[in-house]
Amino acid sequence: MGNPFGPLPAPGTRPFIVEVRRGSQVESRHPVIAAVVDADGKTVAAWGDVAQAIFPRSSNKALQALPLVETGAADAFSLSQAELAMACASHGGEIRHTETVAAWLARIGRQPDDLECGAHWPYHEETSRQLARDRLSPTSLHNNCSGKHAGMVSVATHLGEDIRGYVSPDHPVQRRVTAAIEDVCAVKLAPGMVATDGCSMPTIALPLHALAHGFARFVTGHGLAPERARAARRIAAAVAAEPFFVAGTGRFCTAVMLAGQGRFIAKTGAEGVYTAASAEAGFGIALKVLDGTARAAQTALGGLLEHLGWLDEAGREAIRPLVEQPLNNWRGISVGSIGLAAPGF
Amino acid sequence: MGNPFGPLPAPGTRPFIVEVRRGSQVESRHPVIAAVVDADGKTVAAWGDVAQAIFPRSSNKALQALPLVETGAADAFSLSQAELAMACASHGGEIRHTETVAAWLARIGRQPDDLECGAHWPYHEETSRQLARDRLSPTSLHNNCSGKHAGMVSVATHLGEDIRGYVSPDHPVQRRVTAAIEDVCAVKLAPGMVATDGCSMPTIALPLHALAHGFARFVTGHGLAPERARAARRIAAAVAAEPFFVAGTGRFCTAVMLAGQGRFIAKTGAEGVYTAASAEAGFGIALKVLDGTARAAQTALGGLLEHLGWLDEAGREAIRPLVEQPLNNWRGISVGSIGLAAPGF
Repeated sequence: MGNPFGPLPAPGTRPFIVEVRRGSQVESRHPVIAAVVDADGKTVAAWGDVAQAIFPRSSNKALQALPLVETGAADAFSLSQAELAMACASHGGEIRHTETVAAWLARIGRQPDDLECGAHWPYHEETSRQLARDRLSPTSLHNNCSGKHAGMVSVATHLGEDIRGYVSPDHPVQRRVTAAIEDVCAVKLAPGMVATDGCSMPTIALPLHALAHGFARFVTGHGLAPERARAARRIAAAVAAEPFFVAGTGRFCTAVMLAGQGRFIAKTGAEGVYTAASAEAGFGIALKVLDGTARAAQTALGGLLEHLGWLDEAGREAIRPLVEQPLNNWRGISVGSIGLAAPGF
Repeated sequence: MGNPFGPLPAPGTRPFIVEVRRGSQVESRHPVIAAVVDADGKTVAAWGDVAQAIFPRSSNKALQALPLVETGAADAFSLSQAELAMACASHGGEIRHTETVAAWLARIGRQPDDLECGAHWPYHEETSRQLARDRLSPTSLHNNCSGKHAGMVSVATHLGEDIRGYVSPDHPVQRRVTAAIEDVCAVKLAPGMVATDGCSMPTIALPLHALAHGFARFVTGHGLAPERARAARRIAAAVAAEPFFVAGTGRFCTAVMLAGQGRFIAKTGAEGVYTAASAEAGFGIALKVLDGTARAAQTALGGLLEHLGWLDEAGREAIRPLVEQPLNNWRGISVGSIGLAAPGF
């Protein structure tokens, strides 16, 4: 009890390491690059080459949600905080998630088939099995990105734009999103850096430190136009107030934000990405596990939160099993753990 | 068509890299260490520090099966080639797998509950969903290691030993397995290197090159006592003849052995391990993805097989989509690929 996760090695040009232990040996190692940046763009701490471009994937959904508020769509459709949080979510497809998106779509006169994210079995295993037990198949509502897509469809609907093809980089919906990310992260996104995400929307590579800088600006409003700062604050407040709707049962995004009691936001992205930001501290965090492994990303974020002192004792204890992760086998026998490597590994 | 996987960089002290591409960018990178060793223990080719100890996990199940043949249990119970292959398997829990193990146990007067591997949902997704649709839960038969455990129970049953606790390192069943691995790999296994595997059996760390050496000896019989060499040949022949029972539908172990038309055996282990061996070539291969990621291990093995020329044109084309893996998103749109990084990445 009480001992911190870590400590991390001193910041520097080398990644830090998350290790997977079995018995008394280290079985696998995950190198992590990370940047902590303030709203002026000053790098407060960095590990590894943080000028390197990475795909944020779902870690920047809060930024992608800006047009939803800025165009007036969120007000026009009276979006709740839970719905706004779902626009920023990679949810588990639990019933409260799918029902929230279904009701939202119905209210704006749209249907699940209007979402261009594709369908996949819910990330939440028990929900997935129950769907199979009920002899049902997943729909676009179960896609972890369905809330983000409902947000995009809401914008197009509110502005009277054709919703078809809203995932294309050339659709006005995406052009607004790209412009918002460029503004908030203070970068010019290069066309060659555009790729397609799992849910068919564009994902645009940008330097890791720019992503951290963007999140510092997002939560503080520092350097943003007043209307954009207001929209960002509203989105961040919704995410912090409704962490269940951002991820779900057993998920680290939800657990870590509950542990932070609203003092920061945090969001995972596929291929080992995490972002977090605190208005109080004035910092944004962005990290990437270089091999893309999710199990290491949550441990890495735990170490960074500890390094920055963003968690109190109760918060730290609440997330400890998701950061210093015990590994149990199929019979529940302890066989190892995942945790931060000691500095100078 | 026709272009090889790779080429790999020249052997040396650096790992080679499997990369995950999205659009025109590399999104994630997996370093791989690998050893190709002949039956005399001479390293034919190596990438990275192959003296480093790794946990073989399930990659050495064929070695763990030696006592099953050597004690006479396989003959006493008239094990089929499919059953012998299942003793060396990490199977998908498909119906042909579970029925084979169930029939084997019934024939020797044992039951699924005698297996100490624990239960998990089948690796084969459609089988898993069908189990849920049928409102059933998985049993120890569905555990990917159930065939190996049936082999261990067969040995104890044949020799009149108490089967309870057969997974413990001190049980005679495990002592025989450890002695066989030490002999075949020509190493003395250090006690501090013993950990517990996912299925509750011991897994013992050994240098990567020793694992490759062991597989070269296993398939050639070179340097082994005649009875051990015979047992090894019989096990290798069963694995090569029944690749479905070693893994299953859609799995790389099965596909690559089918592509090799019996000329080599290959087996995955958890945390990014692969072994392979060819009696014809006289070489064993062992590789470990340093971050433990399975998606990179199969690509790495594909590159090594190409490097060694173990696949003909038809075999190469058959496994190409599992080596140069296309990445499609939830709507089936191509978003990237997994493949070997060019030398000098």
